[in-house]
Amino acid sequence: MIRFEALTVFPDMFEPYLSRSIMGRAKARGVYTFEAYDLRDWTHDRHRSVDDAPFGGGQGMLMKCEPLIEAIEDISSLGDEKPHVVFFSPCGQRYDHSVAVDLSRKSRVLLVCGRYEGMDERALELADQTISMGDYVLTGGELAALSVIDSCVRLLPGALGDEMSAVDESFSCGLLEYAQYTRPAEYKGKGVPEVLLSGNHAAIDAWRRKSSLERTARWRPDLLEGAKLSEEERAYVAQIIRQEGCHDDE
Amino acid sequence: MIRFEALTVFPDMFEPYLSRSIMGRAKARGVYTFEAYDLRDWTHDRHRSVDDAPFGGGQGMLMKCEPLIEAIEDISSLGDEKPHVVFFSPCGQRYDHSVAVDLSRKSRVLLVCGRYEGMDERALELADQTISMGDYVLTGGELAALSVIDSCVRLLPGALGDEMSAVDESFSCGLLEYAQYTRPAEYKGKGVPEVLLSGNHAAIDAWRRKSSLERTARWRPDLLEGAKLSEEERAYVAQIIRQEGCHDDE
Repeated sequence: MIRFEALTVFPDMFEPYLSRSIMGRAKARGVYTFEAYDLRDWTHDRHRSVDDAPFGGGQGMLMKCEPLIEAIEDISSLGDEKPHVVFFSPCGQRYDHSVAVDLSRKSRVLLVCGRYEGMDERALELADQTISMGDYVLTGGELAALSVIDSCVRLLPGALGDEMSAVDESFSCGLLEYAQYTRPAEYKGKGVPEVLLSGNHAAIDAWRRKSSLERTARWRPDLLEGAKLSEEERAYVAQIIRQEGCHDDE
Repeated sequence: MIRFEALTVFPDMFEPYLSRSIMGRAKARGVYTFEAYDLRDWTHDRHRSVDDAPFGGGQGMLMKCEPLIEAIEDISSLGDEKPHVVFFSPCGQRYDHSVAVDLSRKSRVLLVCGRYEGMDERALELADQTISMGDYVLTGGELAALSVIDSCVRLLPGALGDEMSAVDESFSCGLLEYAQYTRPAEYKGKGVPEVLLSGNHAAIDAWRRKSSLERTARWRPDLLEGAKLSEEERAYVAQIIRQEGCHDDE
């Protein structure tokens, strides 16, 4: 059981997503709990301001450090265990499968959702971990927090139930997933690879491994370095990469 | 004006996010429109099935190609202009600021939201563009689609109004943004850099540029290659990177 918490100025942005589908069922099964805290509850002025103009001038507003620091301290003092405090910033560690695996093993995670224009640097000192979702900018941290919760929860036992599987997929084995097909066997003249209809499981496994290797070599050769490949497989992907190189020159 | 559309089995996951805050105001101002289509409207069986077991066996279910292909063809035939069709896949192009800039210049974008276990490969052929949000897996494409809409819309004129600014921030100049501070000038013994209180704009600009360079050199040296730096700045970041290297050895 993991407890996710979010500190946000939009506490009601989370439930519409987390109460549906796989996330809703996982919550109902007790795989995780979630609570959103409204940052404005830690303001002291009549307007409940959480932002102010930057020192030194410039466009845009910044999140003030006081409400953030007070809120994180108060929330941390609730319960038996302090949360693992996560901030989102382009300066942070790039979020990926291995970061998700590590986070999903925590018991309490507090996700601090900034609004895009930035935060007072002094608040960032409270972060146990700073995560970047990628080299793009969102209007706020709420979608980042939801993406972290979703990608972590689905790794936990019981989250996916029987419907789906978190194994055999991209990243868990360091390669892109193989090409997949379902019925009909032919649709508007497009068939599926015959081996998949053969019932020969050894041949199917071999085809899938080859498909994974080809796709990774073609689209994400950077992943190959960290993947466990046999010598024969290394030679095979090297050959594909050489061929791709030739195509690029044409 | 850009029109975003989503093809999804959870059409009601979008409005709770898109009707609030900056996205809600931008929609009200006519910066963008949004419509979600329910993929199940293109099924022909009593159970409105959109998924089936993979050929060749294995855990998990796949999205069938028929409803996807029929839906995309039908939706594309609506209106005067065909949409730019975007799929999400770990095999795709990594989403970043420059992909967002390009997408935000389209007039009609259809985001096809898979559920995580994958799609029949034959449906993927309809993609004009395949995007990867990063090396992690979500239960579905809905959060990816929302992240794309959010990060594109905020780049459009009128989206942020006077409240905020899409300039001067990370990635738009190829560097991480400088450290920022707002009131109070001192909080629990923590001050702000004096230059920011000086009113000397040339000195403030120089400090900010230095801060951007330092942060990028420390946390994202990979970005420096594409950034426009003077020779003096190149030497400065090279020095920081050497120092960081020494720290690592300690």
